[in-house]
Amino acid sequence: MNLRSDAPPIVASAPPTLVIECLTPAVDCGRFSAKRLAGDVVRVGADIFRDGHDILAAQVLYRGPADDEWRSVPMAFEFDDDRWYGEFAVDQAGGWRFTVEAWIDAFATWRGELKKKHDARQDVASELLEGAELVHGASRHARGGDRTALDSAAALLRRAAAPQAERVVAGAAAPLLELMARYGPRPGLTRAPAPLPLWVDRPRAGFAAWYEMFPRSFPGAAGGHGTFRTAAAALDRVAGLGFDVVYLPPIHPIGHTHRKGPNNTLLAGPSDPGSPWAIGDSAGGHMAVAPELGTLEDFRFFRERAEALGMEVALDYALQCSPDHPWVREHPEWFFVRPDGSIKYAENPPKKYEDILPINFWCDDRAGLWHACRDVLRFWIGEGVRTFRVDNPHTKPFSFWEWVIGEIHGEHPDVVFLSEAFTRPKRMKRLAKLGFSQSYTYFTWRNSASELESYITELTATPMREYYRGNLFANTPDILHEYLQQGGPPAFRIRLLLAATLLPIYGIYSGFELFEAEPLRVGSEEYLHSEKYQVRPRDFSGPSLDEDLMRLNRLRREHPALQRYDNIQFLPTGDEHVLCYRKVAGEDDLLVLVNVDPAAPHTAAVDLGEAMDATDLATGVSERLDATPWEVTLDPSAEPGRIWRLATLGAPGGEA
Amino acid sequence: MNLRSDAPPIVASAPPTLVIECLTPAVDCGRFSAKRLAGDVVRVGADIFRDGHDILAAQVLYRGPADDEWRSVPMAFEFDDDRWYGEFAVDQAGGWRFTVEAWIDAFATWRGELKKKHDARQDVASELLEGAELVHGASRHARGGDRTALDSAAALLRRAAAPQAERVVAGAAAPLLELMARYGPRPGLTRAPAPLPLWVDRPRAGFAAWYEMFPRSFPGAAGGHGTFRTAAAALDRVAGLGFDVVYLPPIHPIGHTHRKGPNNTLLAGPSDPGSPWAIGDSAGGHMAVAPELGTLEDFRFFRERAEALGMEVALDYALQCSPDHPWVREHPEWFFVRPDGSIKYAENPPKKYEDILPINFWCDDRAGLWHACRDVLRFWIGEGVRTFRVDNPHTKPFSFWEWVIGEIHGEHPDVVFLSEAFTRPKRMKRLAKLGFSQSYTYFTWRNSASELESYITELTATPMREYYRGNLFANTPDILHEYLQQGGPPAFRIRLLLAATLLPIYGIYSGFELFEAEPLRVGSEEYLHSEKYQVRPRDFSGPSLDEDLMRLNRLRREHPALQRYDNIQFLPTGDEHVLCYRKVAGEDDLLVLVNVDPAAPHTAAVDLGEAMDATDLATGVSERLDATPWEVTLDPSAEPGRIWRLATLGAPGGEA
Repeated sequence: MNLRSDAPPIVASAPPTLVIECLTPAVDCGRFSAKRLAGDVVRVGADIFRDGHDILAAQVLYRGPADDEWRSVPMAFEFDDDRWYGEFAVDQAGGWRFTVEAWIDAFATWRGELKKKHDARQDVASELLEGAELVHGASRHARGGDRTALDSAAALLRRAAAPQAERVVAGAAAPLLELMARYGPRPGLTRAPAPLPLWVDRPRAGFAAWYEMFPRSFPGAAGGHGTFRTAAAALDRVAGLGFDVVYLPPIHPIGHTHRKGPNNTLLAGPSDPGSPWAIGDSAGGHMAVAPELGTLEDFRFFRERAEALGMEVALDYALQCSPDHPWVREHPEWFFVRPDGSIKYAENPPKKYEDILPINFWCDDRAGLWHACRDVLRFWIGEGVRTFRVDNPHTKPFSFWEWVIGEIHGEHPDVVFLSEAFTRPKRMKRLAKLGFSQSYTYFTWRNSASELESYITELTATPMREYYRGNLFANTPDILHEYLQQGGPPAFRIRLLLAATLLPIYGIYSGFELFEAEPLRVGSEEYLHSEKYQVRPRDFSGPSLDEDLMRLNRLRREHPALQRYDNIQFLPTGDEHVLCYRKVAGEDDLLVLVNVDPAAPHTAAVDLGEAMDATDLATGVSERLDATPWEVTLDPSAEPGRIWRLATLGAPGGEA
Repeated sequence: MNLRSDAPPIVASAPPTLVIECLTPAVDCGRFSAKRLAGDVVRVGADIFRDGHDILAAQVLYRGPADDEWRSVPMAFEFDDDRWYGEFAVDQAGGWRFTVEAWIDAFATWRGELKKKHDARQDVASELLEGAELVHGASRHARGGDRTALDSAAALLRRAAAPQAERVVAGAAAPLLELMARYGPRPGLTRAPAPLPLWVDRPRAGFAAWYEMFPRSFPGAAGGHGTFRTAAAALDRVAGLGFDVVYLPPIHPIGHTHRKGPNNTLLAGPSDPGSPWAIGDSAGGHMAVAPELGTLEDFRFFRERAEALGMEVALDYALQCSPDHPWVREHPEWFFVRPDGSIKYAENPPKKYEDILPINFWCDDRAGLWHACRDVLRFWIGEGVRTFRVDNPHTKPFSFWEWVIGEIHGEHPDVVFLSEAFTRPKRMKRLAKLGFSQSYTYFTWRNSASELESYITELTATPMREYYRGNLFANTPDILHEYLQQGGPPAFRIRLLLAATLLPIYGIYSGFELFEAEPLRVGSEEYLHSEKYQVRPRDFSGPSLDEDLMRLNRLRREHPALQRYDNIQFLPTGDEHVLCYRKVAGEDDLLVLVNVDPAAPHTAAVDLGEAMDATDLATGVSERLDATPWEVTLDPSAEPGRIWRLATLGAPGGEA
């Protein structure tokens, strides 16, 4: 059996070809899109080589969502390892493509050999004739002055009466090179097998501070159950803290059947509001709003208020239903039916979620179901929503996500999807590859300096960086880590500082700023009196993280270095409790030092390798850091971390 | 523009699917074959996962060159990282394929949930009915006793009168599991996109000691120009040294036009034999033998003598012609014609090779040319040759090699091709991927311990190991490294020890065993009086490496650990001049220590991490190595290296 069925047959028309491979950026050889932000410069790399000794030339071909044809930009051979690079800017959200083509630069090859032989004092009469043929051939593709210029160059190369030295010089004249680059032959012209996809998001998909809040817990002066109107009044505070995105858990009608009571108990009292994730009752399903929050008109008021304050509203997209959801009545075939005829509720044995029915995405009427799910997104997009936090996507089919995100992005390339998958690594990665713009991470469970360094390195310096944008939530309604339960306010300050500076996207869930830390029970990551099952109005006037939040969110907006994803470099500190990282973007050069032990001061020794000016961004005080390791002690009860702006000695920009 | 055109459409018949990806072994995602040897066990790995919580099952499908259908072997989920493995043996040279398929193990999923719920004392009446349905469904595919057994199992699961505990136990009975594995449903059955190719060579392609010799330098008692007959008499010595392959530079008629004289001078005297790489004259081309060596009959005598001694003969496949080659007259269109009508000779400016014409592989009659080149191989294969050392393959088209090796391997899977490409890394790698069985390496230029460790690690512990089999030649007629020129006999002993033990394939070129070290001039890697241009009879009776060669080649045959490619592990020695490596194959556990400084003794401290018995394979003396670092001094003027066989304390096999 000869397996090499893809080996080239001998075909009379087959041209010589080049090898073009290992194109970057690429995700799984082009099966998925690499991700970029509008405004980015995309650096394309490729291995390009061929048998023999010819000089090659190459270019990147690229096209944006609005382009009818390919645009091109030359590539350069940067290192002696057959690796070429070229760059282009992406200025618009949507689907881009790029590829690489390369060819033999016959004229450059000719010139190179001519020079070597002439320098070795060899006779080059025949070589000059070869060059004349190349130039003459090119002139047939030129017109006007270009053609005349090429013809006279060919004539000079051919003129046996002229001294060889003069003709060799003429063959390397700059104007001739330019003309030959334009009109010269491109033997072996080869294009990489298939264009690679690149998905470009709007900038906020890659740089934003998120705030998660349950509107029902923000009542007016009268107290009780909050509404969109009363919660809108709380937006000034959120905007004042510097947040960009306000994310609301599901705002739809909440089911009554098997409604959960406080602390996830099985029997809800008549005044218990239930879990917002048990979606749907007689008032409607995923396209309705819970009457207790107000009307669709009230939601619009809330959204417009947020936007007026410079924020946008993100909604929850949770594809599951309460037993009272209209779909259960209208489309029982969309759910799982048990042998006894009843519809199956959600469970993760031995845990039961009687108030929630999972959807059967592979049911016979999956066409109807999938379209209905897509139409939920279309409805809220019609309501001005452009960001969706997707609940538990790993329990729904991968192919559904690829399809539905593709459908929506085809119509609205500005829509942002955040994947809330906490599961095994490859499944989280797959969802990101399938199209999710951002993804939750394991950040809440990475608390030591070495864990943080290794995890952030994985996110930003491995192939993940091309498709997985981590959103570092410091807490969620489901995750109150032991570190926060036991570390007191210093722990909250440390985690906030890390979340806000390690990556450009981060978030907190309401109550974090008040140091809320009481678990359901010892060993649990659930909050006591979890807001998932009850209304939890808060007093925001007491001790809080507000000052830290305001300062960090301001620094994030001022410093391009905090807005980029893959520019982090960790430095040794000599102390296992102190994390040190440097983030650079152009002139903006920041150094962050964090003591991750909330219980005790630690001293780090940091070495930048050169003496630099450093300005502490909290105090504004500048100092000179020597080239030798310098020591800093961080006392978390006073200040768990510091951020400096660095500048080379004597350079401008030494202050913030 | 929606780029996700490969996103799944909603099709009523579309089933749920699994993700199966990152299959190994694979070369460039299956574009090329991974390589193995007949007798190997192939370990197949794959990432296999799906949305949701179902338990999965998977198997490897594979087929050899003689198989009409797929064979299968189950895979197991070895680590909690969605990575699965399965193994199969390859017992025959030729093209193999494998792929992976996986499915939802519906019965195992059911059993798992049933157990969790039953353990949590939940009522499982409905679950038992679901299980009964699964078993009943499977019984429809069974016959006879299997069907009866399944039907009664289903009946028991369904029997409401029986206690649940009893029915739960029945659902996990071993015979039922076996039947369900055979007849149970396989929802989501998914196969990896395309089978991966695996090229299996005969064992000697991966384990052999090569000896390169010019027959003309092995005259009989009368002296003068050696012949196949006189050189055959020298084969006893070569076989006695323990070599497996005798490689002959081109044996074809040598051209007369511009024949090179001694030391590559331009004018050959009438008695100068010329370079064997200037192939072809009136006596014939690539399918003829040089009359001065004898006849084809004499070549057969030589080959048969080698085979009688347990060796095989490798020929040189050098696709270039002297100006006197018959092809030049019969097919001038196969060469490069200059503007003045003359045929171009080979050059690498400013160097000229006037005695050699390169072939124009992309000429108009490339079909005729490529077939003629292939027929040269067929001719020598017909003469019993099964190994070819290919001269300068990187100056001929990649696509030619892929085609011609594919053609030959389709007919003769036992043919071995060695790529003699010394060029940039990616081009050498490409040739190996295209089908070359073995490749020359940068070994001659890697002389320090750190260079050797890093280079051998690259060869054996990166993706290269799947397709690139390095053949460590210690010298060649073109490469006499400065290290050998200056290091004296200890340098030769060191390099031989390294070549013979670092990788399972190595070679020397005749004269190495006599410590030949005189360069053409200072700074040159060319030999003075290079055998490429003159006859060089040698006196093999003086001081030589014979003892080392015999010992090392014997150890290589005795020790499986020296026959494997990717089983090397380097250990720190605390001295930059001492290299330490361990090679293990099953019970065979070897430790090699080499001082790579031929000029001075050095002392290493080696730590095996545990106390072990060690037997020195040169002296046979056993000793106990402690768990703490132990010191060894190696004096290259006495013994530059040592090899021990290791055994765990008290275990049998502590001696060689």
